[in-house]
Amino acid sequence: MPAQQPLFETLAVIGIGLIGSSIARAAREYGLARQIVAADASEPHRRQATELGLADAVYGDAAEAVKDADLVMLCVPLGAYAAVAAHIGPALKPGAIVSDVGSCKQSVIRDVSPHLPAGCTFVPGHPVAGTEHSGPAAGFAALFHGRWCILTPEPETEAAAVEKVRAFWAACGSKVEQMEPHHHDLVLAITSHVPHLIAYNIVGTADDLETVTESEVIKYSAGGFRDFTRIAASDPTMWRDVFLNNREAVLEMLGRFTEDLIALQRAIRWGEGDALFDLFTRTRTIRRAIIDAGQETNAPDFGRGSAATVAPGPAAPKTD
Amino acid sequence: MPAQQPLFETLAVIGIGLIGSSIARAAREYGLARQIVAADASEPHRRQATELGLADAVYGDAAEAVKDADLVMLCVPLGAYAAVAAHIGPALKPGAIVSDVGSCKQSVIRDVSPHLPAGCTFVPGHPVAGTEHSGPAAGFAALFHGRWCILTPEPETEAAAVEKVRAFWAACGSKVEQMEPHHHDLVLAITSHVPHLIAYNIVGTADDLETVTESEVIKYSAGGFRDFTRIAASDPTMWRDVFLNNREAVLEMLGRFTEDLIALQRAIRWGEGDALFDLFTRTRTIRRAIIDAGQETNAPDFGRGSAATVAPGPAAPKTD
Repeated sequence: MPAQQPLFETLAVIGIGLIGSSIARAAREYGLARQIVAADASEPHRRQATELGLADAVYGDAAEAVKDADLVMLCVPLGAYAAVAAHIGPALKPGAIVSDVGSCKQSVIRDVSPHLPAGCTFVPGHPVAGTEHSGPAAGFAALFHGRWCILTPEPETEAAAVEKVRAFWAACGSKVEQMEPHHHDLVLAITSHVPHLIAYNIVGTADDLETVTESEVIKYSAGGFRDFTRIAASDPTMWRDVFLNNREAVLEMLGRFTEDLIALQRAIRWGEGDALFDLFTRTRTIRRAIIDAGQETNAPDFGRGSAATVAPGPAAPKTD
Repeated sequence: MPAQQPLFETLAVIGIGLIGSSIARAAREYGLARQIVAADASEPHRRQATELGLADAVYGDAAEAVKDADLVMLCVPLGAYAAVAAHIGPALKPGAIVSDVGSCKQSVIRDVSPHLPAGCTFVPGHPVAGTEHSGPAAGFAALFHGRWCILTPEPETEAAAVEKVRAFWAACGSKVEQMEPHHHDLVLAITSHVPHLIAYNIVGTADDLETVTESEVIKYSAGGFRDFTRIAASDPTMWRDVFLNNREAVLEMLGRFTEDLIALQRAIRWGEGDALFDLFTRTRTIRRAIIDAGQETNAPDFGRGSAATVAPGPAAPKTD
């Protein structure tokens, strides 16, 4: 059901991967912009975006894509922000709002703000949503439904621009929150960045073992390991840039994680069952709260595929 | 489709939680035993098991349950094995096979074998399957479909008994593998035990922060954290006992994990993007292999609930 009147005349999506293509799809499906244009540095991405009809026009040059846009959404890896901002800055339409979807907000403000001409407003944003897949074909309009989007404007940012970006995300089905950039980076370090890092790490550790073969790791992954491989299948470029651009907060949270892990290791070595039991009980409460908050379902996902992968039920045993 | 002839006359399931109740259900559904009896030390468990009709008889005393059984399945936490084995040993029927489902195999052999009378055979087993839920109501017959079950009999164990236990698991839909107990414990330390430990640990670390509130951790958990909370919601008693009973292998694997994590931490501190990118690329390959091996689906599970939690699509934006 499209809005009577789109929020924006022209939306330019710069970078048409999982998130960019989901935004383009949502904008189309919910009638959020009269015209949707996209830019991507990758030729295969541009071809896919064109074939999928994700935008009215698809450009190789981001400066061309932004010239008529009143909302520009940066959806490129964090490492490309400074160059993209410097490149599109002079081409921006007066009064254009620039926003983004990057997972770190301090670095984004540092990299983008200096390149925007007077009269353009930067409203940094971060939809906390995603899947482990990448590319233009991986996106879907419902990706942001029920998920939080965090905006981190500076105190002096024009309120009307912040409001328009907020309305855009609300129309995508998101719940919108405002936060200090520094605080955002801390919160995401523990809820997203460090979890990804330790998932990547354990998959790497398992891959390096000599005593356990790769085939064994794969066969017996249903014991818990496979959940980590899903997270560790996320886009390598995006995640490299996250760690390089949220270094301080990640190192701080990682320090605490390691400290706690060493304490657990010691409890195991000394057979301190009560300390283990107490922690394992406490963590259940948080799980319950996440389900109650609608950020997770209670379906027993460990058992996933168990019914689906083997079709009608096992054959009867041979007893003769 | 029940077998012509059940594999066992009487199956006794000792401990009727998630795994025990799934075994009872599978045995019933696939006709693997003529009679199914159960025992559980917990009165509420016994009541639930009776209400759910999981067994033909439900006992508080395990010794009573085993007296006619030709297959006894121990499904209690690892910490209870020695006491249960000592208690049921004298009550076992001559020729009975005792098997189990414990996540560590060296400790199980140490705790059970000395208590079995001559003529009874112990065939240690471990179905690598489960969910994050616990209790008699959480089980389901299809839990073992397509999953591996690892048997770790000693070289001198009677081959016919091993074969009967193998046939039992195959009839439950499992793929069955044989392994040295020591090797089993190493493999599971990396594919299951350490993943659970780091999941419990990061949930604890997040819960302890002063700079980030619990409410923020919950709201923004879709960034990766929530996947860890699922694992960290597993049964506390079971997992305490796993770590206490597979100490050597867990400490060994944990040492490697921490070593690798410290190297990653250093790469982040020094801005070594290539090292991060290389690891993050390598881990994708393992994910692919797990999916190809049928141990995981390729559905973009990060997006789970996004379509399900918000029913018809977001409201059109207000633009008046």
